[in-house]
Amino acid sequence: MHGHGNDMTKHRIIFDTDPGIDDAIALVFQARHPAIELVGITSVFGNADIDTTTANARYLASRFAPHVPVAHIHGKDALGEIERIGHVDKQEDGHAAHRFIVDTVRANPGEIMLLAVGLLTNLALALKEGPGVAALVHEVVVMGGAFGIHGVLGNATPATEANTHGDPDAADIVFGAPWKVSIAGLDVTHETVMTRAFLASLRDGAGDAGRFVWDVSRFYQGFHADDGVPDGIYAHDYSAAAYVVARDLFATRRGPVRVLTDGIAAGLTIQKPDSMHTHAPDWDARPDCEACIGVDADAVLDLFANTLRN
Amino acid sequence: MHGHGNDMTKHRIIFDTDPGIDDAIALVFQARHPAIELVGITSVFGNADIDTTTANARYLASRFAPHVPVAHIHGKDALGEIERIGHVDKQEDGHAAHRFIVDTVRANPGEIMLLAVGLLTNLALALKEGPGVAALVHEVVVMGGAFGIHGVLGNATPATEANTHGDPDAADIVFGAPWKVSIAGLDVTHETVMTRAFLASLRDGAGDAGRFVWDVSRFYQGFHADDGVPDGIYAHDYSAAAYVVARDLFATRRGPVRVLTDGIAAGLTIQKPDSMHTHAPDWDARPDCEACIGVDADAVLDLFANTLRN
Repeated sequence: MHGHGNDMTKHRIIFDTDPGIDDAIALVFQARHPAIELVGITSVFGNADIDTTTANARYLASRFAPHVPVAHIHGKDALGEIERIGHVDKQEDGHAAHRFIVDTVRANPGEIMLLAVGLLTNLALALKEGPGVAALVHEVVVMGGAFGIHGVLGNATPATEANTHGDPDAADIVFGAPWKVSIAGLDVTHETVMTRAFLASLRDGAGDAGRFVWDVSRFYQGFHADDGVPDGIYAHDYSAAAYVVARDLFATRRGPVRVLTDGIAAGLTIQKPDSMHTHAPDWDARPDCEACIGVDADAVLDLFANTLRN
Repeated sequence: MHGHGNDMTKHRIIFDTDPGIDDAIALVFQARHPAIELVGITSVFGNADIDTTTANARYLASRFAPHVPVAHIHGKDALGEIERIGHVDKQEDGHAAHRFIVDTVRANPGEIMLLAVGLLTNLALALKEGPGVAALVHEVVVMGGAFGIHGVLGNATPATEANTHGDPDAADIVFGAPWKVSIAGLDVTHETVMTRAFLASLRDGAGDAGRFVWDVSRFYQGFHADDGVPDGIYAHDYSAAAYVVARDLFATRRGPVRVLTDGIAAGLTIQKPDSMHTHAPDWDARPDCEACIGVDADAVLDLFANTLRN
């Protein structure tokens, strides 16, 4: 928590997102949680192309966060035009997501939390646009990566989670920048499953938001069922949102994080825990990140249900 | 177990080793276990240069396995001369470790188990020397790598265990060859700690072999204490030897394994579990390996103590 005008308890968040059903669930939570103030929504490609994710973001904002501005990554067809941070078109665009981030952070020094649940392209572009901006950000919370805590290093490939896989260069830049970064990866998101029964209870007892979450999760649940998840959906993006307001429900490990940018494991996240004393020059020069390695999943699910019911 | 002459129950092992105190402990176990027949010892660099590891191997053999031949990697100063499989001198050497492996395997088709607890250089060279030899090997059991099951991907670096780190190209070749490979990495070896009390009980109750293990572990225990291990030593190489005779004490996961050969994580082992259905061309064309992901550590330690006491 940190100060903000009349309300001293609100987390002021820019939600960087590629909706996506998973993202929609995380957005509904933020819109309903009393300690979160959504300052803006920035869209990035990932779950779908940029036109789709931007349209989805606008729809979600109109339904659940009607006064929150939406900015998108610049470029007409993002996946073709700017697939990787290294290939970004330099054109100016006042509505560009990364420019929105830079401007908003500069206007609110020390206040803004960046909650990023898609590729980290927008955050890396923001750092490029305004290198000094890192010191002005309150905290960056990322859904991405995997540290193998439960034997899983990836979902996009055997080595990589989808968000870090999609733009590994951006992820390595974001995790190495001089701001506070916390990471909720597969190590915790795979532990927190919204079961069919849980979702049905939201449908029946959590009003319009609960019915929306039930409706959008029908397709997603089928998708995951194919992938071997029994009777439910992983709370990927919501886990990062829950971390913002209830970090005592998570166990974390401190240490610098690198992201492999080349080869068959490009996108793999590797932390050097602070408890490891081996000299490791590729890690030692970088700032610590806080990586989630454990979660009280039941409490995180209760938090979601209670927030929608209130 | 498989047939062998008059004794139908013996595992016939070539022990590929870089002694090393850890290796010495594993060798003592093999020399004393009634179901193991040591067919040969091949030395490789790793814990020390090749002159030291070969001298140590000869000493260990003379003391605990006096009739077992010792072959070493060719080249006078291995770490300088043939640090990586790609740079190996092609000179012929009848006493070369890899040639000993090839000749012994060909003379005993389907019989020989390769127990490799150092860099995988000798095994990769054997495959290069005689590609058909893979089909004639009974099984390869490796101490090496780490799959992050307990949040640890390495000890040499944050990303890599020392044996796969030391010659990642060889490891990727060995794990991809058409033979049966089982891997005991840090996921199990870090779980099995020989405490000072355990070692003292061996000293007092397991005869000459027990006193030897106590004596050699004094230095090693001090070494690990610096590395944060409380009051004991990791049973790295012994764990792989225990797997040979008591694999029911280990939980394993099947699936192809790749070893990164370049970049800041060169040497990192990544398995695609057979339960993962994602298309992953860099893994899918390769044979399954059996990776140890769990261990009954108390039983593995009992096995050691009982073997030395008998």
